Amino acid sequence: MEEMTKVVLDAMGGDNAPGEIVRGAVNAVNDRKELSVILVGQEPVVKEELAKYSYPEDRITVCHAEDVIETAEPPVLAIRRKKDSSIVVGLKLVKEGKADAFVSAGSTGALLAGGQLLVGRLQGVERPPLAPLIPTEKGAALLVDCGANVDARPSHLVQFAKMGSLYVEHVLGIQNPRVAIVNIGAEEEKGNQLVKETFPLLKEAEGINFIGSIEARDIPAGAADVVVCEAFVGNVILKLYEGVGSTILHLMKQGLLSTLRSKIGALLVKPALKETMKRFDASQYGGAPLLGCKGLVVKTHGSATAKEVYNTLLQCKTFKEQNVNQKILECFSVPEEEK
Amino acid sequence: MEEMTKVVLDAMGGDNAPGEIVRGAVNAVNDRKELSVILVGQEPVVKEELAKYSYPEDRITVCHAEDVIETAEPPVLAIRRKKDSSIVVGLKLVKEGKADAFVSAGSTGALLAGGQLLVGRLQGVERPPLAPLIPTEKGAALLVDCGANVDARPSHLVQFAKMGSLYVEHVLGIQNPRVAIVNIGAEEEKGNQLVKETFPLLKEAEGINFIGSIEARDIPAGAADVVVCEAFVGNVILKLYEGVGSTILHLMKQGLLSTLRSKIGALLVKPALKETMKRFDASQYGGAPLLGCKGLVVKTHGSATAKEVYNTLLQCKTFKEQNVNQKILECFSVPEEEK
Repeated sequence: MEEMTKVVLDAMGGDNAPGEIVRGAVNAVNDRKELSVILVGQEPVVKEELAKYSYPEDRITVCHAEDVIETAEPPVLAIRRKKDSSIVVGLKLVKEGKADAFVSAGSTGALLAGGQLLVGRLQGVERPPLAPLIPTEKGAALLVDCGANVDARPSHLVQFAKMGSLYVEHVLGIQNPRVAIVNIGAEEEKGNQLVKETFPLLKEAEGINFIGSIEARDIPAGAADVVVCEAFVGNVILKLYEGVGSTILHLMKQGLLSTLRSKIGALLVKPALKETMKRFDASQYGGAPLLGCKGLVVKTHGSATAKEVYNTLLQCKTFKEQNVNQKILECFSVPEEEK
Repeated sequence: MEEMTKVVLDAMGGDNAPGEIVRGAVNAVNDRKELSVILVGQEPVVKEELAKYSYPEDRITVCHAEDVIETAEPPVLAIRRKKDSSIVVGLKLVKEGKADAFVSAGSTGALLAGGQLLVGRLQGVERPPLAPLIPTEKGAALLVDCGANVDARPSHLVQFAKMGSLYVEHVLGIQNPRVAIVNIGAEEEKGNQLVKETFPLLKEAEGINFIGSIEARDIPAGAADVVVCEAFVGNVILKLYEGVGSTILHLMKQGLLSTLRSKIGALLVKPALKETMKRFDASQYGGAPLLGCKGLVVKTHGSATAKEVYNTLLQCKTFKEQNVNQKILECFSVPEEEK
């Protein structure tokens, strides 16, 4: 029999809360028997949404939280002050062992701060990175770190590589994933101080398939499965992906509607184009885990729809079943003889 | 009468040398009376290309250089050893005042090293940044620095902002250009150490229209005219622009050819789509200047075609006519009372 996975879901976070969040939860629980969800948020609102669906009532429960942390609030302060917010209440349920994972589309900053302050790091983990999957021509790549730790040190990047590799292998099922470090040239001597110091450490690191430097140009083509960088660069990569993508699609739409001839053509190409561009849609891969926390903390897009919530819940299930945290612990445990 | 601008053009650099380079020079000189070009490279090869065209022979001359610096060579070493390479010979002509500018599609590293070592910096300039124009929905933005100075200091970034602003105003003709610093959030307290230290300096800086932080997502939309960042981040932005763009276009082509219906539609939309996507084509803006050198040093894309070479030569002409270097000198000159 499969083990039950229990996920706390922030019903109040993100642009489409609570509607899409609740719908995603209902769909996931209806599809997977060994999954249960605790919706945390303002009970009357959440229950009103839930009333629209039929679902196994023993596997979706509601936990009341009066407050909501807004995106603009200073994260650490918000975590400390809003003790009764959906994020704080949810993270505490994970900390207390009452759930396996916490998922939120709310404030990234509050989630990162709360993950570290309330849930805590696994033993041996220096800094937990945020690791979203970004679409590539060949599928997806894990980008670590994309915003949790600015001004990281070389030893942090080596841990990012190891945790990222374990995640991609066991949650995405990619054998021997290719790990690369973001650099401004392919040669080993290129790069800034951080990359130059990290490169030899990654080369020597055990248990990862390090393939060297990757230039930003080669990330969308799918040249690596785990893309390692410090958080500032990672955040720039993630946001520019969105920006260039949406600008090109915007220009394309303008082009398609610019002449009568192109308008007729647009009607013909639309279905095929839509199908293809779906492959470049990040939401199919679910949310971004904050790797190296006790339990699992996952951030979904602020604009997350039911589909992304659904995929994220399944991802939490795989994470637990594959014992990824145990593998991270083993990876960073100090061998007996070195103690 | 307009002043004559004399540009040294590396006939041997880039993927399409010497054919496209020579053609771009011929077109530019035929179109503009007050422009003359010195083609530097292997004389027999260059002359053979030139023989294909008619042009005013007093305004295109050839300067022989036996060697070529390859892209893979260590830049500083190459500059020191290959004294008779097209890059070294060309840069020396600028240094000696025999030409106003040097343009090359060859090794970026050699050009950056040579610009600083052979041509030298303008008085007051700490580090010359490489500043390409990147396409946006509204036109283009200048990205400074995109690869010349990794691990830059705050004072360097302030200079990048000032030089970039002068360039955009006087060469592109954008009045009061909006200057922004690349950051991972819009709030002033966000960012890594470098950005946090640079932000207040930019706020206080005179002579620029500083609009604050820009997230990478907003660069393609055209939210700023001058985008300031250190070279590692700038290089990632430039290369990811290319990468995401080419992956999306690649997927789109696959989509358009995937069904019979879409193939017919593709024929109809092609002309309009091509016209629109031209707006997202970097080559129309010419090459990237290395700002703050005595004279002007410009890097064009390795894949530069005659069109890009043509536009770059016109850009050199505007740069000289607008006296941009004089304006940079004035901007960084120490006032009498502070001496």
